[in-house]
Amino acid sequence: MNFEHFFRSELDGLHAEGRYRVFADLERQRGQFPKARRHTADGVKDVTVWCSNDYLGMGQHPKVIDAMKQAIDHCGAGAGGTRNISGTTHYHVLLEQELADLHGKESALLFTSGYVSNWAALGTLCSRIPGIIVFSDAGNHASMIEGIRHAKCERVIFKHNSVADLEAKLAAADPAAPKLVAFESVYSMDGDIAPIKEICDVAERYGAMTYLDEVHAVGMYGPRGGGIAEREGLMHRLTVIEGTLGKAFGVMGGYIAASAALCDYIRSFASGFIFTTALPPALAAGALASIRHLKESQVERFAHQERVRRLRSLLDRNGIPHMPNPSHIVPVIVGDAAKCKWISDLLLDNCNIYVQPINYPTVPKKTERLRITPTPLHSDGDIDHLVGALHQLWSRCALARAVA
Amino acid sequence: MNFEHFFRSELDGLHAEGRYRVFADLERQRGQFPKARRHTADGVKDVTVWCSNDYLGMGQHPKVIDAMKQAIDHCGAGAGGTRNISGTTHYHVLLEQELADLHGKESALLFTSGYVSNWAALGTLCSRIPGIIVFSDAGNHASMIEGIRHAKCERVIFKHNSVADLEAKLAAADPAAPKLVAFESVYSMDGDIAPIKEICDVAERYGAMTYLDEVHAVGMYGPRGGGIAEREGLMHRLTVIEGTLGKAFGVMGGYIAASAALCDYIRSFASGFIFTTALPPALAAGALASIRHLKESQVERFAHQERVRRLRSLLDRNGIPHMPNPSHIVPVIVGDAAKCKWISDLLLDNCNIYVQPINYPTVPKKTERLRITPTPLHSDGDIDHLVGALHQLWSRCALARAVA
Repeated sequence: MNFEHFFRSELDGLHAEGRYRVFADLERQRGQFPKARRHTADGVKDVTVWCSNDYLGMGQHPKVIDAMKQAIDHCGAGAGGTRNISGTTHYHVLLEQELADLHGKESALLFTSGYVSNWAALGTLCSRIPGIIVFSDAGNHASMIEGIRHAKCERVIFKHNSVADLEAKLAAADPAAPKLVAFESVYSMDGDIAPIKEICDVAERYGAMTYLDEVHAVGMYGPRGGGIAEREGLMHRLTVIEGTLGKAFGVMGGYIAASAALCDYIRSFASGFIFTTALPPALAAGALASIRHLKESQVERFAHQERVRRLRSLLDRNGIPHMPNPSHIVPVIVGDAAKCKWISDLLLDNCNIYVQPINYPTVPKKTERLRITPTPLHSDGDIDHLVGALHQLWSRCALARAVA
Repeated sequence: MNFEHFFRSELDGLHAEGRYRVFADLERQRGQFPKARRHTADGVKDVTVWCSNDYLGMGQHPKVIDAMKQAIDHCGAGAGGTRNISGTTHYHVLLEQELADLHGKESALLFTSGYVSNWAALGTLCSRIPGIIVFSDAGNHASMIEGIRHAKCERVIFKHNSVADLEAKLAAADPAAPKLVAFESVYSMDGDIAPIKEICDVAERYGAMTYLDEVHAVGMYGPRGGGIAEREGLMHRLTVIEGTLGKAFGVMGGYIAASAALCDYIRSFASGFIFTTALPPALAAGALASIRHLKESQVERFAHQERVRRLRSLLDRNGIPHMPNPSHIVPVIVGDAAKCKWISDLLLDNCNIYVQPINYPTVPKKTERLRITPTPLHSDGDIDHLVGALHQLWSRCALARAVA
């Protein structure tokens, strides 16, 4: 087999479908976020970033910056080993305690990323509990799907956010089999929110564990930033809450919070936890500072929600269609991979607005979109500029307007 | 099912086997490595770390520290998104160019860890190339095994480092099937080195791709730190070279270096690359500084090798048995999980020497060991103290002496 030929022809297929990805080469500017510099073949240009998951701008918060630099001065760059072999630093220990407290759980366990936390935790639970059946929301993230797939256990997909379908499928399963229900609170691409209480009710009725991914909610919802489950007073009803340090907390890394025995079990048996270098002390220190700040401060959360409302109302006023949802994610559907990329390119090249086109496999084909994420740091002027640019493009590209 | 009971009884099993892991809670001291502070219930104690994978002490090198702090000041904490969605910074671009150059390849691709790079790259190649057969060394790391397992392709395990067995198995396979040979250069736990040239010869004869994990070699071997393949003039013969930024380079992250088409293919199709937040700019900046330094400086490599030789000769003089190997890893076999942990505890509590006991599943049962990793920063006094402590323990515990 000519491997090079194979790789090139697969890439040609992506080009032909208009979904070959070109990464924007950015230089974030601390203190200027959401402004950044973009490197191109023609030189460097200033852009406004409208698609970051640094939802609250904590990636440039002075407390986070100072904590990271202090940790580097104090401990150096990397952890130097796996958690078991010299890689556990005091920052990791403190951060796990802080995360357990955030979610009202006995323990928490850090992973190198949110992806790895889902993959490793679900992969371990589902492969090692004999006879387990996993009930997985149809909209679950790739990392959850891969973890479940990895486990080779029996899996049942229930309709997205459908409590009735979940209940029907739980009822149809062997009553004696151990069960786990895996779902998310805020779904990344549509921004819709799961009926957590009702899912917990049903899961409890059938003796199933619950595993909730809150990566798009931690830091942003709940009085201490514990996520949607905190806001709704439901944290104690979830067996596992999974979160990330790489979005609203502004750093990098993932975690689970759960009972001491469950965390210790994953710690002891998960390949993706055991056999990998620990997070650098500076990342743990930065995340710790960020979580502590957002446990006490409401300023960022309130400002965030206000910015989201303002953007939505301006979009509405200009007839730019966006998916209604109760979260901070504003999806503007284009529905065609090539057109979506074209609009994104025009926004970038002509208006210095950076919104990455989202295409398959991140979203289903025909639902290609601009996924817009306002932050507390987007000004009125930034919002006006974005909506004005979209307004012009919608006319120029003859895209459908929303019906008022 | 009572899940809590299940988790606890599984953990009880680990305790009973003597292989329940207790993480040492360390505070690395920048500028003092390999000294660190250890947090215990009784307070904080100073220890000398003898089991770090920060093999050259680059985790505290001023160039690395300064580059990280500058990047934090310049760009902030996290990348704020996946590589595709606002998370590619200019540091990532420069680092991938530097890594491609290090290994003499057209391209390189970053991952959040070495574990993820193996899992995602092998998982993607082996699941997406129709009919591929993977030939995997029996000693391969968990991350490679999980990637191959994930792919559900046909896999053939060949005897560790056995070119004859590999050739027999290649010869027995369907000549028309695409093939990949996956192996490591330096094996982590035994410290032995693969016959890379002979494996390439055989692989080429059967038209197989070669995938070489150099995580325990990059930075440390070869005139520019390109690894064993560089030292032996073989980099051009490998299809993929995989490495880490978290060991000799002192930071965190993983990568592959290969042809432009292969890297672009993995970039475009690997779930574990696509759906995860990018490395923070500061980690990319720190790794870049570390690689650039080790491309030019031989001081660390020469000092490292000298320290390894000195430790081995003192161990020999004291009859402490250690596995002979041509690398920098010094495994002292104990062969019993409980005894290994006991020795490690005595070293830590009585001598302030920290060497984590290595037990199953990291190594096979009955080969439990102390895995000692000297660095250029261990002094003569450190080495004398370690060997003296081992000497006393060997007498006290009636452990077998090496025959002179």
